[in-house]
Amino acid sequence: MATPVKVYGPAASTAVSRVLACLLEKEVQFQLINVNMSKREHKSPEYLKIQPFGQVPAFQDDSISLFESRAICRYLCEKHGNRGNKNLYGTNPLVKASIDQWIEAEAQSFNQPSSALVFQLVFAPKFKIKQDEGVIKQNEEKLSKVLDVYEKRLEESRFLAGEEFTLADLSHLPNAQYLVHATDRARGLFTEKKNVWRWWGEISGRESWKKVVDMQNAPPA
Amino acid sequence: MATPVKVYGPAASTAVSRVLACLLEKEVQFQLINVNMSKREHKSPEYLKIQPFGQVPAFQDDSISLFESRAICRYLCEKHGNRGNKNLYGTNPLVKASIDQWIEAEAQSFNQPSSALVFQLVFAPKFKIKQDEGVIKQNEEKLSKVLDVYEKRLEESRFLAGEEFTLADLSHLPNAQYLVHATDRARGLFTEKKNVWRWWGEISGRESWKKVVDMQNAPPA
Repeated sequence: MATPVKVYGPAASTAVSRVLACLLEKEVQFQLINVNMSKREHKSPEYLKIQPFGQVPAFQDDSISLFESRAICRYLCEKHGNRGNKNLYGTNPLVKASIDQWIEAEAQSFNQPSSALVFQLVFAPKFKIKQDEGVIKQNEEKLSKVLDVYEKRLEESRFLAGEEFTLADLSHLPNAQYLVHATDRARGLFTEKKNVWRWWGEISGRESWKKVVDMQNAPPA
Repeated sequence: MATPVKVYGPAASTAVSRVLACLLEKEVQFQLINVNMSKREHKSPEYLKIQPFGQVPAFQDDSISLFESRAICRYLCEKHGNRGNKNLYGTNPLVKASIDQWIEAEAQSFNQPSSALVFQLVFAPKFKIKQDEGVIKQNEEKLSKVLDVYEKRLEESRFLAGEEFTLADLSHLPNAQYLVHATDRARGLFTEKKNVWRWWGEISGRESWKKVVDMQNAPPA
């Protein structure tokens, strides 16, 4: 590849880190361009040209400019099918359908309560915002029910979409990382479910993800 | 095709009707199997075997059993590439990436405020549930901001992902249908934006979608 692809946004963002994990799995070279959200750079006219919703990440390569982390991951896997982890988005239509199904389960069922808990339990204390106990309880209950379904699935299957680590698993890493490592309270939602906890150990131990966590913990350049 | 594919769930469900629209665009024969949600059939042990979250739709063909409407649509387009509307999921990787991007915009930005408004404005009165004015106002503001981005996009481009009607547009039909037709209040969010309103006219006029609306309005068998 002539020039590295560009990813815009802070590594600490869950959606940005989803794309970084995918790039590392696919061994695609990238340049991370910080977007200082406390200075509202994500709402600047220049940034809005590449991400019209004013969110992170945005992505550019020689061919295309894209937003939405899960769409960027799908594109990377389609374009770089033969690079890096070749199983990440499956190698046959039935496996791919199962991967899409569990990416959607993440996006529609896991993401909302997880993001709410990450905000309440991790970012609210950091930015001195008052936590809302009602919201926390409601989303703990919701997430626990979602993880009950995962527990059953992961009893039958090593990973969500089958016997290989795929985009479906990867897509869960960003929110789960905050929930398991930043708060004792949310960690319990994972540890109390045997198969979920086994799965979490396996997916969070990927070299790609460990590099992303290092990027998140590195002091800003 | 030997046997029609099976879709489980009521046509009135937004997620079910997304799959029905896709099947009609792709000219794939299907059998709609009702799931009586007021009798909680979607939580029965038998149904949970094919849809572990207890939601609609579920889908089955000769090869696979799937849930999550957007994953089912992607699978149908991949499997039946040469049937019916061949542009529905694009014919080259860059167009496909743009379609995926706007499917995700629907799933992550449009769906939440739309679904909240459909519940509050359409289903709450129907089931004699008290409406929450605070929730309505908050989601009207959210949806209006999302549609501002669409307005700009649809000024440059006939449809969301380019010059062809695709899964990205189709994915918006179910919630938009309720918002535009069932409530004067939400209709204004669409009519006040010139390009959004032009786009809505075009996508809701598809023969496939008119058939889905007829199915929604038909008395239960």
